Amino acid sequence: MPELRRDPVIGRWVIISTERGKRPDDFKREKRPAKGGFCPFCKGNEDKTPPEVLAFRDPLSLPDSPGWKVRVVPNKFPALQIEGDLGKRADGIYDMMRGVGAHEVLIESPEHEQQLADLPNDHVESIFWALRDRCIDLNKDSRFQYILIFKNWGEDAGASLEHSHMQLIATPIIPKRAIEELDGAKLHYQLKDRCIFCDIIEQEIDVDKRIIHQNENFIAIAPYASRFPFETWVLPLKHISAFEKTTAEWFVQLSDIMKTVLKKISTILDEPPFNFIIHTAPCKTPELEYYHWHIEIMPKLTRVAGFEWGSGFYINPIPPEDAAETLRNTNEKNQAQ
Amino acid sequence: MPELRRDPVIGRWVIISTERGKRPDDFKREKRPAKGGFCPFCKGNEDKTPPEVLAFRDPLSLPDSPGWKVRVVPNKFPALQIEGDLGKRADGIYDMMRGVGAHEVLIESPEHEQQLADLPNDHVESIFWALRDRCIDLNKDSRFQYILIFKNWGEDAGASLEHSHMQLIATPIIPKRAIEELDGAKLHYQLKDRCIFCDIIEQEIDVDKRIIHQNENFIAIAPYASRFPFETWVLPLKHISAFEKTTAEWFVQLSDIMKTVLKKISTILDEPPFNFIIHTAPCKTPELEYYHWHIEIMPKLTRVAGFEWGSGFYINPIPPEDAAETLRNTNEKNQAQ
Repeated sequence: MPELRRDPVIGRWVIISTERGKRPDDFKREKRPAKGGFCPFCKGNEDKTPPEVLAFRDPLSLPDSPGWKVRVVPNKFPALQIEGDLGKRADGIYDMMRGVGAHEVLIESPEHEQQLADLPNDHVESIFWALRDRCIDLNKDSRFQYILIFKNWGEDAGASLEHSHMQLIATPIIPKRAIEELDGAKLHYQLKDRCIFCDIIEQEIDVDKRIIHQNENFIAIAPYASRFPFETWVLPLKHISAFEKTTAEWFVQLSDIMKTVLKKISTILDEPPFNFIIHTAPCKTPELEYYHWHIEIMPKLTRVAGFEWGSGFYINPIPPEDAAETLRNTNEKNQAQ
Repeated sequence: MPELRRDPVIGRWVIISTERGKRPDDFKREKRPAKGGFCPFCKGNEDKTPPEVLAFRDPLSLPDSPGWKVRVVPNKFPALQIEGDLGKRADGIYDMMRGVGAHEVLIESPEHEQQLADLPNDHVESIFWALRDRCIDLNKDSRFQYILIFKNWGEDAGASLEHSHMQLIATPIIPKRAIEELDGAKLHYQLKDRCIFCDIIEQEIDVDKRIIHQNENFIAIAPYASRFPFETWVLPLKHISAFEKTTAEWFVQLSDIMKTVLKKISTILDEPPFNFIIHTAPCKTPELEYYHWHIEIMPKLTRVAGFEWGSGFYINPIPPEDAAETLRNTNEKNQAQ
């Protein structure tokens, strides 16, 4: 059973996951995922994953068989385990609980080579719908406090399988980074009676120096204090605190802007590895006046991360104004749709 | 001139450094540092670095010429610039200041192939002495609030040059991670009237499950909530809040434990890339009852960092108890001294 342990100084929770069965020898060299070869996410291999928890599929097809467009399955090597109670306890001066949670994988397409940005608009919409459905379902579990939704693409960004996918991790604690963001936003609201993210959007539209793309409902910006070259945030223009409360017509625009931005990044940076994370309100909170969900996209281009993640001190050699201008002026490749 | 910009939501400062002259094209592929070839840190190439600010050298030798053992020079491509005032100002809702600070490089040895852990004990002591001297000197500058001392070793840990070195960055703000640690430690002190790090040391000695090595004045442990496999903290046994207040006889023991631990890590993990960071009190603070300086060593073995640094949520597949046992039982290679 994995454990959740709390750092006693700064309060960060860490999953100590022994289920993945790694031994010291496994770390001597960074293992690169095998290219080619067998892929459990491809159509026809549905029996090589745990049974699906959600699929958008041909109504005549059977679960865990071909005929799907988007498929969500439990992670075969989960960081957290779905069964049991939390068993919160002290370990001397330390705090820990059992590693209870959900860890799911969303397979974006049955085709191995398909990338998120190249899928048709309605297919990308389905992916966001599936994420929303899973959020709503996992939200019902009283043990879960936060749902982390993220995508790792490319081996240098931590993707262990080539086939394009996203992950959901439902956790019994709120991750430290989410708490910091919520606290910072709450403080701004207390001082100003305004949402900090709404303020950011207004200033960015006003100065028009860091906008990468905009459509009816969303804006993509290079954030003022970008940690990484070409870091990109995608925010809904209208204030809304939780991703899963986004409505149908907004997913059309979300798919459009995510495809556009990812294609621009891919074109200008030659298909870089990247991560994105959906920043959203904790489970079971009402609509929050002070928080505003958004997506943070981080191309993984520089290697200085080791020091930076340890110190919280980032050095970014590309001003976000330059990154935004470059991305704004990039004509994304028009892939066949 | 580089800029320091503050993230308006979570308060993290970022250096936007344009002086390094990178353009979007430079990021298309991760550049690997050239192996072999010319090295500006080797003896005989002293004129290829900015003039030294400190060197321990043969008394008959001249500055910026051979004859040195340890040499500190300004970084040729500094993240921050030493000249000028801070020019703190608002940029609409954002906060920024000029990127004023010091960025120095400590070259550990005149020999290209020498690694820190393989240097004789008295040589490693000289390195810590040089760091201490630079801290004391930089502390005098009223503009600086924190001195970050760190080492990146190996290209995957962000080292841009092979020749073993460390870096010092003196900043006009306290990095977010340091503030969090100070705040967490202060809260514990307010509640318990004890230093949290002293409490950690006491519990670790008591349970004896996560100790990697110990000598008269220092202890090396795998921290309870390790973020990374084989993460190692080295702490002075006696309470002391700032690295530069450590006394002469303690540097003997510090050199011993750092060499021992780094050799163990190198042996068991086959010379992995790693980072270490000296966590110390801010500049110009008196001795703090609640804070305890220490060194955090992070072997860079896993590639999941992109997601993890964005979420603050870490998954560690090796329990620290197993890592400590493995390292404790590893006989470090006895290199020639």
